[in-house]
Amino acid sequence: MRWVRYAFNDQVCYGALEDDRIRPIDGTPFGNHAFTGKRVGLDEVRLLAPVIPPTLYAAGMNYQSHIKEALALLPNGVGVRAPSRPEVGYRAINAIIGPEETIVIPRDSSGRVQHEGELVVVIGKKAKHLRVEDALDCVLGYTIGNDVSERSWQAVDRTLWRSKNTDTFKPMGPWIETEVDLDALFTRVRVNGVVQSEFRTNNMVFGVAEYLSAMTQYLTLYPGDVLWMGAEAPCSDMFPGDVVEVEIEGIGVLRNRIALEA
Amino acid sequence: MRWVRYAFNDQVCYGALEDDRIRPIDGTPFGNHAFTGKRVGLDEVRLLAPVIPPTLYAAGMNYQSHIKEALALLPNGVGVRAPSRPEVGYRAINAIIGPEETIVIPRDSSGRVQHEGELVVVIGKKAKHLRVEDALDCVLGYTIGNDVSERSWQAVDRTLWRSKNTDTFKPMGPWIETEVDLDALFTRVRVNGVVQSEFRTNNMVFGVAEYLSAMTQYLTLYPGDVLWMGAEAPCSDMFPGDVVEVEIEGIGVLRNRIALEA
Repeated sequence: MRWVRYAFNDQVCYGALEDDRIRPIDGTPFGNHAFTGKRVGLDEVRLLAPVIPPTLYAAGMNYQSHIKEALALLPNGVGVRAPSRPEVGYRAINAIIGPEETIVIPRDSSGRVQHEGELVVVIGKKAKHLRVEDALDCVLGYTIGNDVSERSWQAVDRTLWRSKNTDTFKPMGPWIETEVDLDALFTRVRVNGVVQSEFRTNNMVFGVAEYLSAMTQYLTLYPGDVLWMGAEAPCSDMFPGDVVEVEIEGIGVLRNRIALEA
Repeated sequence: MRWVRYAFNDQVCYGALEDDRIRPIDGTPFGNHAFTGKRVGLDEVRLLAPVIPPTLYAAGMNYQSHIKEALALLPNGVGVRAPSRPEVGYRAINAIIGPEETIVIPRDSSGRVQHEGELVVVIGKKAKHLRVEDALDCVLGYTIGNDVSERSWQAVDRTLWRSKNTDTFKPMGPWIETEVDLDALFTRVRVNGVVQSEFRTNNMVFGVAEYLSAMTQYLTLYPGDVLWMGAEAPCSDMFPGDVVEVEIEGIGVLRNRIALEA
């Protein structure tokens, strides 16, 4: 099933996407809900980020080549120690945008703004103290994120606040796919139609279940929380006017345009 | 005015506290609201954290003595560079508890769990590109936070996820005070009634207006967002059975008990 969150007649709704038709629900996929019996065309709505999470968790460096890239790029940066176990970070809610929305680069950026195409785990059930073997039971489904990163700020800031959490730097979507075979997924990042990065999505240092289990020894996951699983190298620069697409086969395509702040 | 968020008859409500009586509102202080005309006794309700923010921002090291303490304690830690300008970090929603709730130390903690008594700024209006001189216009009021920190995890983890974001490690409350003279405030942290830390609240490296202005050059603040302003040294250890109180004169007292995980 594909859950979409969308704006229609100035209202924000959830529905199930079937081909190019949406079956709206009352409520959300994260709680009690019922189909309204109505139908809406996909072309009649504007898709939104599929969830505004209570907490946006990010695995950070979780693919081997990206770790090497990050360690080389950011000798003085925060968070550049290679991970020896699943340790999670955070991104901020202000930065979230939906599919087809514009990534806006601030005027004082150096211009070193890169994509990071990521699998996003969407939590469906409250969970704590998960064992690895049961950890995926709390997952509602998966979507796609682009962990847009300004590399010059990443190298000099004390935290990731500007580099990764500037407004519009966290595109997420286009929907939540509930039927996913993690091992079958491939991630491809295209800029202006040219593939810049392509990797087996599940080729992570620490997998989804390991992360969820480790996290929930200390923290409670809530419905709607999301966990971004990290990106593989290479991450290339994006410039105003570019169109960036993150495709995960079996989920969909998250597409956004780049602009310079007016 | 003092805004309280509370549980009453299994419902979560906001109201204005006047002496020991609450005047409930329909809605929240962050949007349209109206007084219901009812009255509820403070002793009839359970106070909750005064807001569950979209994003929980944290200034981190923002007092001179605490910076020295942190640099000495955490030679290998993340985020131990002294701040040269206002740079903001994050805490996680799962960790929030309210006044009188229990701070629970996980069984595998080293036991080096410390208080950090902090002023918390509560945002009332959407804001971006604030100038320092207008920045406080977006503030609804102020509350109190205890940025509970497990120091051994803070020294070894790649992020602050366990040290500062374990469940129950972010007590906040008891209410939002809208009438505050920042320069008149004093913070006092007591453990079992004994003062451990006492400092002029506004004696920060970077003040509230400077932080809000710097942040909003890159990010949009939303109603309900909170910014924790950092704590001054010394931060002392707390043990199961202890009661920790953070008092800010002119706001109130945030009190929590410490327990070991069952």
